[in-house]
Amino acid sequence: MKRVKLTVAYDGTNYCGWQIQPTAITIEKVLNQELSRLLKEDITVIGASRTDSGVHALGNVAVFDTEARIPAEKISYALNQHLPEDIVIRKSEEVAPDFHPRYCDTVKTYEYKILNAPFPDPMKRMYTHFVHRPLDVEAMRKAASYILGEHDFLSFCSAGSQVKETVRTIYSLDVLTDGEVITIRIRGNGFLYNMVRIIAGTLMHVGGHLMEPEQVAAIIEAKDRSKAGPTAPAKGLTLVKIEYPQSKEGES
Amino acid sequence: MKRVKLTVAYDGTNYCGWQIQPTAITIEKVLNQELSRLLKEDITVIGASRTDSGVHALGNVAVFDTEARIPAEKISYALNQHLPEDIVIRKSEEVAPDFHPRYCDTVKTYEYKILNAPFPDPMKRMYTHFVHRPLDVEAMRKAASYILGEHDFLSFCSAGSQVKETVRTIYSLDVLTDGEVITIRIRGNGFLYNMVRIIAGTLMHVGGHLMEPEQVAAIIEAKDRSKAGPTAPAKGLTLVKIEYPQSKEGES
Repeated sequence: MKRVKLTVAYDGTNYCGWQIQPTAITIEKVLNQELSRLLKEDITVIGASRTDSGVHALGNVAVFDTEARIPAEKISYALNQHLPEDIVIRKSEEVAPDFHPRYCDTVKTYEYKILNAPFPDPMKRMYTHFVHRPLDVEAMRKAASYILGEHDFLSFCSAGSQVKETVRTIYSLDVLTDGEVITIRIRGNGFLYNMVRIIAGTLMHVGGHLMEPEQVAAIIEAKDRSKAGPTAPAKGLTLVKIEYPQSKEGES
Repeated sequence: MKRVKLTVAYDGTNYCGWQIQPTAITIEKVLNQELSRLLKEDITVIGASRTDSGVHALGNVAVFDTEARIPAEKISYALNQHLPEDIVIRKSEEVAPDFHPRYCDTVKTYEYKILNAPFPDPMKRMYTHFVHRPLDVEAMRKAASYILGEHDFLSFCSAGSQVKETVRTIYSLDVLTDGEVITIRIRGNGFLYNMVRIIAGTLMHVGGHLMEPEQVAAIIEAKDRSKAGPTAPAKGLTLVKIEYPQSKEGES
């Protein structure tokens, strides 16, 4: 038996998120189904990040065990032949038998994309959140500086989360521009439920001058979700990558 | 009565091109239908470029006449409320009564986008053509230099075109890279049927070392479609803009 790690990219538009649900099409369901068909055994993947409905990924991670003799690194090519074109396996590799995609220290990178323009762009409609009024990017950058570092991010966590420990460390938080697209790129050691989307919603509030950049410090301090900005829509969010400590991935 | 010019952006993925067909959904059909409903009269638009099925636009142009009292520049906002989200009117303006979107000297800009990467990107699947083998961008640039200027482009015109005059002038043809995306950006005074897609297919042949850059001169000379590369798939192509001579647009 071997444990295989998949690096998975997907367009989340047509899926009800990652996690299996009885009556909805999810990424996890499609992967289990197509892997089971390909490897001729019952496969159940474990995902690193259970992304919400409509959220995209360039590098989510899933792990499964198999008895199949096919070399781990060839599974990506074989599986891509059978997957719908909005899910792509970018890499498959063997990992240590005790590798678990959620229970080790990882660093995750997300991007939140905003189209800040007078009119929507039909070709960006599924991958950006459209904002008509011009956003003050410098103010957003200043607000972002307060989020950097180790903080209790309870104010940036949606209700319904069962997480007890709400301290996280943000290593970088950049507000980048490329033409009419503003990208909020954030890298940290963990994210609470909806944390990136609430940070994006708060930065957009600051960019629209509905809030001062300096208020972000007080929002963190308050440990109260109602003080932060709104949860930005799912479609602007992409899980870019998950970095694992080298030693945990084992040798293939 | 006034003549109104629309600047139209669309994601062509779900349309059978611009031009009205009895049983298929086209951009022209949707515009006629929603304009007629909005202005409460029978509206028939005339398009500048009858883009093929699957081709996208950021700035196609359509013109129509109306008796309606609504100021021309407000039509974009009103119409966008009723259009599906894959069609967006970016501008509406009054033009001279004799302005015709096809019968005047225009300069058109197209972009053809290639994703040149080891694996497809689900979020770019509808707007780029995926090429797995690494393309030689320098060779593509060299090939592009032969296309610049005034030539008879008969070799770059699909059969079925009824155009008699096949001489066109290409003002610029750039091969740009942005990460894994290669963009062929071309600006000229007119394009034959499938001309941009055949140029893109030919440049990709050169980039894949299936053809020498210097051969492009001989292909032009041959005036024979069979000498050029294949017609690249529609989904990589976007009509970026159409420039009209100032005097032809009249005053509103």
